[in-house]
Amino acid sequence: MKASEVGEFGLIDRLASSLVEEHHIEAVERLIVGIGDDAAVWRDNGSAVVATTDTLVAGVHFLPGRTPWRDLGWKALAVNVSDIAAMGGTPEFAIVTLALADDQDVEELEELYEGLAAAGAAFGVAIAGGDIVRSPTFSVTVGLCGRAQVVDGDVRVMRRDGAMAGDLVAVTGELGGAAGGLRVLQDRLETDKGAAALVQRHLRPQPRLGSAQAGIGAGIRCAIDVSDGLLQDLGHICRYSRLGAVVWRDKVPVQLGLAPFFGPEEALRMAVSGGEDYELLLVGPQEKIEAAAHDADAALTVIGEMVIQGIHSAELLDERGGEIELGSKGWDHLREQA
Amino acid sequence: MKASEVGEFGLIDRLASSLVEEHHIEAVERLIVGIGDDAAVWRDNGSAVVATTDTLVAGVHFLPGRTPWRDLGWKALAVNVSDIAAMGGTPEFAIVTLALADDQDVEELEELYEGLAAAGAAFGVAIAGGDIVRSPTFSVTVGLCGRAQVVDGDVRVMRRDGAMAGDLVAVTGELGGAAGGLRVLQDRLETDKGAAALVQRHLRPQPRLGSAQAGIGAGIRCAIDVSDGLLQDLGHICRYSRLGAVVWRDKVPVQLGLAPFFGPEEALRMAVSGGEDYELLLVGPQEKIEAAAHDADAALTVIGEMVIQGIHSAELLDERGGEIELGSKGWDHLREQA
Repeated sequence: MKASEVGEFGLIDRLASSLVEEHHIEAVERLIVGIGDDAAVWRDNGSAVVATTDTLVAGVHFLPGRTPWRDLGWKALAVNVSDIAAMGGTPEFAIVTLALADDQDVEELEELYEGLAAAGAAFGVAIAGGDIVRSPTFSVTVGLCGRAQVVDGDVRVMRRDGAMAGDLVAVTGELGGAAGGLRVLQDRLETDKGAAALVQRHLRPQPRLGSAQAGIGAGIRCAIDVSDGLLQDLGHICRYSRLGAVVWRDKVPVQLGLAPFFGPEEALRMAVSGGEDYELLLVGPQEKIEAAAHDADAALTVIGEMVIQGIHSAELLDERGGEIELGSKGWDHLREQA
Repeated sequence: MKASEVGEFGLIDRLASSLVEEHHIEAVERLIVGIGDDAAVWRDNGSAVVATTDTLVAGVHFLPGRTPWRDLGWKALAVNVSDIAAMGGTPEFAIVTLALADDQDVEELEELYEGLAAAGAAFGVAIAGGDIVRSPTFSVTVGLCGRAQVVDGDVRVMRRDGAMAGDLVAVTGELGGAAGGLRVLQDRLETDKGAAALVQRHLRPQPRLGSAQAGIGAGIRCAIDVSDGLLQDLGHICRYSRLGAVVWRDKVPVQLGLAPFFGPEEALRMAVSGGEDYELLLVGPQEKIEAAAHDADAALTVIGEMVIQGIHSAELLDERGGEIELGSKGWDHLREQA
């Protein structure tokens, strides 16, 4: 069977079940969150380590030649910071792997590292080490470790499987800008008015560390970042929490400036399935969402709720409660995209 | 300038100096070992985390079609365990990134994960998470976290820059077997007598965790694993410790069975510059090396010593003290190989 037939998330499940002998290992008992969440979490001597990794591959995750190297460095770290934020953790140390051809220009790599350093300074992350390997395909992989709060032995993290029926779904900031910015780059629309702001949303994601801490402080224990697309990422929460979710179309905070550029229908499609906005979805009871909104460093908009239903996925509803079909719900790294 | 012109180790130095703004970051003050060693080390709330990463790229680090998937999984973890061992740490949690084409066979990936799990069980490592990305070039990247001993606030690790003039250089086990095994696979010599043992040395490295702990316990504070080749890896210790090193040809423990297969001269060349044996180089004063040898889980052979000289590299000497020239001293991931 081919990877494209099972898809990224089916493959993760199958590989996780290949790890059969793990119960012999002492470290396994210290694991709090394993395969299948934004990041892994384990206990370490009174503290809790949060660890994740993400790779940007040339031609798959960025457009070579149309992505400035400093922006690529920024993004390589920022997308990992977003994973740590989605768990409610604080990022600290990064390990960077560069896969490159031997005729790769060194000055470009130095610019990439300047971007990494700028993101490190912005998010409090030290670049601690890494690896350089030769490869016909350029990629940059960041492994990122951080910490989660531990209070009286209780490790405070936000998990994909922590949603309850009736919980509200809230999202930080605005959605669709990154997809719009990618389209601008792809179609070479850079000269249009408003394009620069969208391109920045695509190239320089701003992970929501402050809002994540507000969520943890408010007692929220379920979250995910919007990397693959709102409906798809909320769908992961549905699948792991064994619930459905509804999202109300008229509540979705579509990126300002997107509809004038692409039209309202396409702007909505980008907002709910475009991905790469690296906004934060917080899921919890109303009073905790309100408390988080009070302390968050970005606008927090309630866009839907968790419901009991047999199909564990997220649906977009119109004003009359009818489901809106959009084709693809987001980005799967292995299936053919719609 | 091209990457091949500065080489892997020149590039690492240049990229490290691109990280200019790091002094603002609180995490940087907790960093004990940063870029340029086998692994990074940082303080975390009374303990010390050791973290590393290594990538195996198809066609560069392994022969697709001639490397069983279970062996590839084993090796992907084992080479990282070896980096943690070289620091004197204990490995604990791994994060795995697979870069693959969408027509990649799923059963092969399951076998790879079984190999990862087997190595995890052997070395006490839990597979805690990871990432799957699409790429035209297959690769597997492991990020590995572990712990170092902390005694009265003193973090006990073995660093590349810890050698002193007069220190002895000792190596575990035997060298050259992995290079011999690779040659067997490349030249399809599998049917020859003794070939299977060499191939196993190439496919299933056995990192020296026990000997590393013996070194730490004996007070040794300088080590490296033999991944790129004995002279090249010892050269890293020379460069970081600002010393030279001599290795005595007649003391080098050449893999049993290698000389009958390839002849004594080629066997020696494989032993001193072949790489991938994942044996451990321990560097320290005689009494500490002897104490480590007593507790090590493998034979520990004294092969040379650290000397004061202007050129910070390792030389191979014959019985009369003359330098033996071998061409390439080992594996650089970016320069053209000799």
